Amino acid sequence: MPEALQAGVQLALPAEEAAHVARVLRLGPGDRLRVFNGRGGEWLAQVETASKAAVTVTLLDAVPAARETRVRYTVALALLKGDGTDEAIRDVVMMGATAVRPFVAARSEVSLAAAARGHRHERWQRVAVSSAKQCGRAVVPEVGAPVTFADLLARPTDGVGMLLVEPSAGPGPVALADVAPPAAVTLAVGPEGGWTGDEVARAVEAGWMRVRLGGRTLRATSAPLAALAACQAVWRDE
Amino acid sequence: MPEALQAGVQLALPAEEAAHVARVLRLGPGDRLRVFNGRGGEWLAQVETASKAAVTVTLLDAVPAARETRVRYTVALALLKGDGTDEAIRDVVMMGATAVRPFVAARSEVSLAAAARGHRHERWQRVAVSSAKQCGRAVVPEVGAPVTFADLLARPTDGVGMLLVEPSAGPGPVALADVAPPAAVTLAVGPEGGWTGDEVARAVEAGWMRVRLGGRTLRATSAPLAALAACQAVWRDE
Repeated sequence: MPEALQAGVQLALPAEEAAHVARVLRLGPGDRLRVFNGRGGEWLAQVETASKAAVTVTLLDAVPAARETRVRYTVALALLKGDGTDEAIRDVVMMGATAVRPFVAARSEVSLAAAARGHRHERWQRVAVSSAKQCGRAVVPEVGAPVTFADLLARPTDGVGMLLVEPSAGPGPVALADVAPPAAVTLAVGPEGGWTGDEVARAVEAGWMRVRLGGRTLRATSAPLAALAACQAVWRDE
Repeated sequence: MPEALQAGVQLALPAEEAAHVARVLRLGPGDRLRVFNGRGGEWLAQVETASKAAVTVTLLDAVPAARETRVRYTVALALLKGDGTDEAIRDVVMMGATAVRPFVAARSEVSLAAAARGHRHERWQRVAVSSAKQCGRAVVPEVGAPVTFADLLARPTDGVGMLLVEPSAGPGPVALADVAPPAAVTLAVGPEGGWTGDEVARAVEAGWMRVRLGGRTLRATSAPLAALAACQAVWRDE
């Protein structure tokens, strides 16, 4: 959709959306629906013409979007087993993440090659769009193509780099509640088997901070959600 | 298992566990396993005798348990669709909940009768045991039988009663970050469709506090986990 939207503007829906509206939802002239462009706007719209090939709508009213966070959260997500990465992306998008950077950790059980074969990157982008829609966010976070851990460390991070470590990691890590609110944070969460000692050492050398969250070991799929909820509560980032 | 456990003590496993050890894990004399009594202890043990009917073990060493939280968290959980309640119980047990009180909210799509027919209470108790085991907690939280919302409000709560409300609830609710650390809290989380105005009014009348968490609407299955992570971070409860 073009960027300049206002009430009264007529638009043709993209082919895939048009097919969904005409064939699955079976909407016709006069029916109303919500349209969404992923870059800041959701609109209530009315169908003008609908065929299997094309649907045109008139925009009626802008739908107020869910508030975006004050802090920018990039979640660096170790690839998880099964649908774990999908689940984690859905959850962090719901929590307001501004970007997701999937990477392969030493103990990830999915390789870059397997992720590419399974077209995972495209799938994760769809998960992000659908989660943003569902929770009324007007902005769809960018999901990066998966990279190696070395590449993750080599690239500049947006804001403070924080590596989420388990409570068993012993002394050294900072409690999340002691971290002052940053303008932006890149929060790395490890895979099911946790970080290797080598990964932690390399991250520290690259300037990342180790942070801990609570006294219990969290499931890898839940840790990203728990960490964002904790950051936002501690930093009063509503 | 009896309460007084120490290294060297010999025990017979309960029949169901014995069958699992002998038939599924196929352990025999000399093999090691972990045993767990759900009331404060996990032990490394060695099999002495094993048949399909009975397994005896000798306790070797107590396994250090995951730390319990300082604050007692009772989670009052509205029944959710499908496996949602199971998922939420698994997550809050992982986060250290001390008790779970399932209830039927006005917008719950599962009734007390349906929950009873589906033997949900027994299932939730098994979910709690398995989640406690998996995250190394020595204590299994009690999961209550499901009750009505009226019964939930009529019974005394353990500690401060807090009703988690959506950001769209408008002014009135307190931000979680402004609540001082209590000794105990009972945190009620609503169903997929949210609370009705009547439910909120009745809870307030019964002395519950309305609290809000962040600026985005959370999925009903994720909200309990997010709320506990936020409480623990804000209250520095590790």
